[in-house]
Amino acid sequence: MQQGKSSLKFTTEPSIIGVCSVVGKKEGEGPLSASFDQIENDPMFGTDTWEKAESAMQKRALSGAIKDANIKTSDIRYLYAGDLLGQLIATSFGVIDLQIPLLGLYGACSTMGESLCLSALCIDSGNADYVASMASSHYASAEKQFRFPLDYGNQRPYSSTWTVTGAGAVILGKRNGYAKITGATVGKIVDLGVQDSMNMGAAMAPAACDTIVRHMKDFDRNPLDYDKIITGDLGSVGKKILIHLLKEEGYDISTNHMDCGIEIYDGEKQDTHAGGSGCGCSASMLCAVIVKKLKQKEWHRVLFLPTGALLSPTSFNEGQSVPGIAHAIVLESPNE
Amino acid sequence: MQQGKSSLKFTTEPSIIGVCSVVGKKEGEGPLSASFDQIENDPMFGTDTWEKAESAMQKRALSGAIKDANIKTSDIRYLYAGDLLGQLIATSFGVIDLQIPLLGLYGACSTMGESLCLSALCIDSGNADYVASMASSHYASAEKQFRFPLDYGNQRPYSSTWTVTGAGAVILGKRNGYAKITGATVGKIVDLGVQDSMNMGAAMAPAACDTIVRHMKDFDRNPLDYDKIITGDLGSVGKKILIHLLKEEGYDISTNHMDCGIEIYDGEKQDTHAGGSGCGCSASMLCAVIVKKLKQKEWHRVLFLPTGALLSPTSFNEGQSVPGIAHAIVLESPNE
Repeated sequence: MQQGKSSLKFTTEPSIIGVCSVVGKKEGEGPLSASFDQIENDPMFGTDTWEKAESAMQKRALSGAIKDANIKTSDIRYLYAGDLLGQLIATSFGVIDLQIPLLGLYGACSTMGESLCLSALCIDSGNADYVASMASSHYASAEKQFRFPLDYGNQRPYSSTWTVTGAGAVILGKRNGYAKITGATVGKIVDLGVQDSMNMGAAMAPAACDTIVRHMKDFDRNPLDYDKIITGDLGSVGKKILIHLLKEEGYDISTNHMDCGIEIYDGEKQDTHAGGSGCGCSASMLCAVIVKKLKQKEWHRVLFLPTGALLSPTSFNEGQSVPGIAHAIVLESPNE
Repeated sequence: MQQGKSSLKFTTEPSIIGVCSVVGKKEGEGPLSASFDQIENDPMFGTDTWEKAESAMQKRALSGAIKDANIKTSDIRYLYAGDLLGQLIATSFGVIDLQIPLLGLYGACSTMGESLCLSALCIDSGNADYVASMASSHYASAEKQFRFPLDYGNQRPYSSTWTVTGAGAVILGKRNGYAKITGATVGKIVDLGVQDSMNMGAAMAPAACDTIVRHMKDFDRNPLDYDKIITGDLGSVGKKILIHLLKEEGYDISTNHMDCGIEIYDGEKQDTHAGGSGCGCSASMLCAVIVKKLKQKEWHRVLFLPTGALLSPTSFNEGQSVPGIAHAIVLESPNE
């Protein structure tokens, strides 16, 4: 149903009925170690390139989610998925063997939000019984793509984030599961002119602010209607900016804001600076932590808001700014 | 409505109510010169990089389509759009000023098909009055991205295609317009092991074949139920392969097949080898030629099938194959 200008309210309340999170060694050494479904200590995932490693991780995550939902691969009507690499090669080569009709998405680190929004719309429209949604990132493939190859050993400023090696896959269906998707607000591109690819949090916070403000207006809610407002990967720098920007708009999220990038690592012990980032950060946290707390009714309603920084090596090298985008998903505890 | 395993049948028949095609000088010198809305002789589109040129082209195309539909930019609920460049920078920087909530897509040269499918689903589900759909490519930004910078002056084999400098933007709504979208079949990734980035037609033809076969089965139709079956950018090499592969599956499209990539240039005079390619090839041909023939009832029903080759410079350099994907859209003449 139409609700407000850019939000969706799902009347049939599509449900998350299967999840799987697969992460790397560093994520497995963090504070949420016990929550992930699979921790792989080999950064190559048994392959010979970083990109193939990310593909292998996606395949494992999607296969795990299908098993968790207790359905067959052929039951899935569409897969909405993406990653950070140019031309989505982690996804294309990762899911090829599963032969599910594919809708490739790119929203930088906001991809899991985009994917859940479109997947929920597909189920809600009556066009599918089961749909899959997935996003991934890999520290080494992302650093090679966006900044420096690891072998170069460059130093990282404290504002930089650490790309999570992780994938999260979700199966949506119509029966009771981990959580219901009851609404969504689609992001707009917001550009305040940040040009520092080592400070993604600052680039993405204005987009998160814009989406949250539009969301609250569209749904006529305030931040305390949510147990948590969970951004994807703003990190400690972006978190401060977001809370500040929202205060100026009249919204206080200082008591119930959480950022997946801050939670996934122990920043001090693990030397991850501002926190984790990447599509795989919010995607793996969704599957490992968020939907489980909703299922256990520790939380009843959260706003899940993956945040993306829109840059490429080319746009960065050509001196372009780094605009941001954020898509918001309303997740609620399942019915009794 | 559900129809078959991977197809959609749109019950409300979303309508293409505004279009705009913007192309470069070479496309403007081709046989369809008179059909395009805008021909720009400056390959830089007044900017200082190829990527910004492509962004400028997207902005012009979308603005033109909005004007053609006689609506306001703020009437558009969502924009589904993409391009060929890493991290979709042509799109991100192209549409930023229009401030329409954005769902970024990547399907290589199949993106216009993916975009129309998701846009039509959104309208059909009752979640939007107006939705926009767009894809672009630029010869110089694509060659720089995927093969060689133009300054290198490399030679091109006859199997290679010429990336179209072009963008096509479409506004979907509910009132009568150029054409109705009555169905869609979402593509699967098909990989027959082609490893030659200079022979995209061969890489994409098996995916086109797979989608057409699934489409005909899902809708219980045969190729002659369509006035034309229009692939995106198989070129002359891919066309032969597709017709051959479909014959083996029991379908004959030899009399009503058309390929946008073959039509857009005069191959002999313009030295474009196997034909045109790129997201912008099928997108600009859709807006300039296909919907107009449907509106004039020269054609009554066509299958529009943009075809994509899933490779990146990284996957190619690492010796990976080039899988293909193709999304099919059923376009029909408008009601009286």
